[in-house]
Amino acid sequence: MDNYDIGDLITIETENTTYTGTIMPSLNDNIIVIKMKSGYNAGIDKNKIKLIKLINKGEKPNYKIPPLKISENNNLKNISILSTGGTVASRVDYNTGAVHPAFTADDLIRAVPELLDIANINGKVVLNILSENMTPTYWKMIAEEIEKEVKNGADGIVIAHGTDTMHYTACALSFMVDADIPIVLVGAQRSSDRPSSDAALNLISATMCATEQIKGVFVVMHGESGDTVCHLHRGVKVRKSHSTRRDAFKSINSIPVAEINPFKKQIKYLTELEKTNKNNIKINTNLEEKVALIKIYPGIDGNVINYYVDNGYKGIIIEGTGLGHTPETIFENIKYATDKGVLVAMTTQTINGRVNMNVYSNGRELQKLGVISCEDMLPEVALVKMMHLLGNYDTEKAKELMNKNLVGEITEISRFDSY
Amino acid sequence: MDNYDIGDLITIETENTTYTGTIMPSLNDNIIVIKMKSGYNAGIDKNKIKLIKLINKGEKPNYKIPPLKISENNNLKNISILSTGGTVASRVDYNTGAVHPAFTADDLIRAVPELLDIANINGKVVLNILSENMTPTYWKMIAEEIEKEVKNGADGIVIAHGTDTMHYTACALSFMVDADIPIVLVGAQRSSDRPSSDAALNLISATMCATEQIKGVFVVMHGESGDTVCHLHRGVKVRKSHSTRRDAFKSINSIPVAEINPFKKQIKYLTELEKTNKNNIKINTNLEEKVALIKIYPGIDGNVINYYVDNGYKGIIIEGTGLGHTPETIFENIKYATDKGVLVAMTTQTINGRVNMNVYSNGRELQKLGVISCEDMLPEVALVKMMHLLGNYDTEKAKELMNKNLVGEITEISRFDSY
Repeated sequence: MDNYDIGDLITIETENTTYTGTIMPSLNDNIIVIKMKSGYNAGIDKNKIKLIKLINKGEKPNYKIPPLKISENNNLKNISILSTGGTVASRVDYNTGAVHPAFTADDLIRAVPELLDIANINGKVVLNILSENMTPTYWKMIAEEIEKEVKNGADGIVIAHGTDTMHYTACALSFMVDADIPIVLVGAQRSSDRPSSDAALNLISATMCATEQIKGVFVVMHGESGDTVCHLHRGVKVRKSHSTRRDAFKSINSIPVAEINPFKKQIKYLTELEKTNKNNIKINTNLEEKVALIKIYPGIDGNVINYYVDNGYKGIIIEGTGLGHTPETIFENIKYATDKGVLVAMTTQTINGRVNMNVYSNGRELQKLGVISCEDMLPEVALVKMMHLLGNYDTEKAKELMNKNLVGEITEISRFDSY
Repeated sequence: MDNYDIGDLITIETENTTYTGTIMPSLNDNIIVIKMKSGYNAGIDKNKIKLIKLINKGEKPNYKIPPLKISENNNLKNISILSTGGTVASRVDYNTGAVHPAFTADDLIRAVPELLDIANINGKVVLNILSENMTPTYWKMIAEEIEKEVKNGADGIVIAHGTDTMHYTACALSFMVDADIPIVLVGAQRSSDRPSSDAALNLISATMCATEQIKGVFVVMHGESGDTVCHLHRGVKVRKSHSTRRDAFKSINSIPVAEINPFKKQIKYLTELEKTNKNNIKINTNLEEKVALIKIYPGIDGNVINYYVDNGYKGIIIEGTGLGHTPETIFENIKYATDKGVLVAMTTQTINGRVNMNVYSNGRELQKLGVISCEDMLPEVALVKMMHLLGNYDTEKAKELMNKNLVGEITEISRFDSY
């Protein structure tokens, strides 16, 4: 092993497998890590290696990282990139091949120096978590950091975020942050050490959008599976709709706000947006965390509703079937909830389309039991909105506001060109 | 009012509104029902009517329903249409404008006489429910009815079903019924009294497919929002993906099996299917109903898992985030479940795409806790499959079979042409 260096292309034979790839840094002396042609990394126990063959000697890597010296350009806007973790800000664990969050915001700039042509970048690590571990408490922290940045002169905010729950966070910030600037969440489906990584184009596109004179909370991700355009989505109309594709995020019951060409540095707006050139900000981080989301299915045990009611829950979002229905067998459980003053609201598990509880008798009965319609809101959006409303108002007022459009989360009339 | 007859086109003025439409039958002497141009019905309290104006006198309706006399054609196959209720087999309540299930299978044939050119039709009412009220017990009843029909000589089965849970039933029948014939579920998004109804074309297309020499359980619905083609979907790869559109059903992680042109009576296969010309059938209706589906979200209370475990549940399907993750805060609850022998399996709430718990540390930890991957199975399919497996095998064997393909529910390699 001592004859081979990082960067060398080698073939390793073990009893069962032959690996070919480039030697990567390893944190464990007993393991050799190679990056294979597929883009995946393999960690191989040195004791199990039968033969190593050199294919090509690699160039000696230069480990000196140049100091990050950024001079401010007065013609450019000031954009703060807040890093919360996730694939867009991740590194590979070269022992296991698994991906861990690690990069700092500074590292992001180092990885994508083009960002400095778009804006004066101020990087800051807010969190360092995988987004599956995101919590309402972290949402509040991010809102507070946004407020600090804007008060310190930021013209726009980019938030590097894991993709698993990025749409939940985008939604939470939509309700929590009332700002006259763009707040753009961005992630990546493939980590930056892979040739197919979408991290750089997404970051460039997000930063471009953050310099625009628009207001609101948005998500930027690949608009197609290829490296062509990115899409700017409204934070309250978007959802992660695929587990692996780079164009995983789709606007639901809506179309994207804009199409971004990061190569030509062009933004084409597809819908009209309110323009602003102020930097006002006001945040309201009150949240009632005792709100549950229940997805309906044939044979569901209605007593799970009682479980939540008996454990002090203040609100329940039902992800019903079709136009917003549940089995009539759980009507008594829903009545138990509404009788106890728990706010119960209906969304649909079809994901696409609007709730309408006026068409079938089942929906009418549910309305009589006090269940309110969430219109064309996504279940995830309805959940976060109810947390926000019950954190700020009594149940009656929250019930009244639940199916009123506050920040673009409800579309009055469905567009025919959105599925 | 006594001057006007059913079928007359009239204008009614009340204090607040003016209605124009055709008088429909009313079950309540105090209410006049009209069908408006929009296709919607309005029931108007006679006491609130200020003025009625006749626009056109309608033709006297002929209430005599001709007897259904069907002579068997030896050149045609024998298809049984089993009616379970739903919009495809619904009538409008002319008092309220709401839709109720009512039509019998005979009524379906009366409404769509073209069916008799396609096959010898044997209609039977199995259930009369809205599909939101479907239960595992009803799945068993339908499977038993299918067995009876096939043993009595049916060459194919069509099941008229409400759309809300049609994909759950299709999935249940896929696992319960092992037959050498096509079993085709069909629904409608608009009731047959509306000009935009999709009921007739869907029924014709489904019946066409039921006469084919294919085997398995399928769903037929509109393939586009217009009246052009219908799609034949595999029962284990399909999902209601829109609350209102006529092309609400989409094959997920797959493409439709075939495209049906009901006007030209043509079926174009898009994937290869096993051909058969036998009528063998075997059913297995064992089900473990104590299986729960839990959708994950930021801030979820992990103790809901303990609730299910403590209430005797044998299996839990998790609808995780991204590649199949949960917040690490609920790891201890998952461990509680697997330690007690509860089978826990992972699907993804992105709906599209495959679970892969090898990429991130979160997924690896979940695997260590005993959680198994459901690959590219839909959450709904994983739920029904686990009910089937735990109804027939011990937990160890069920765990082994859960991520093996049994009836087409798992695709080994994802198609690039499916989103």
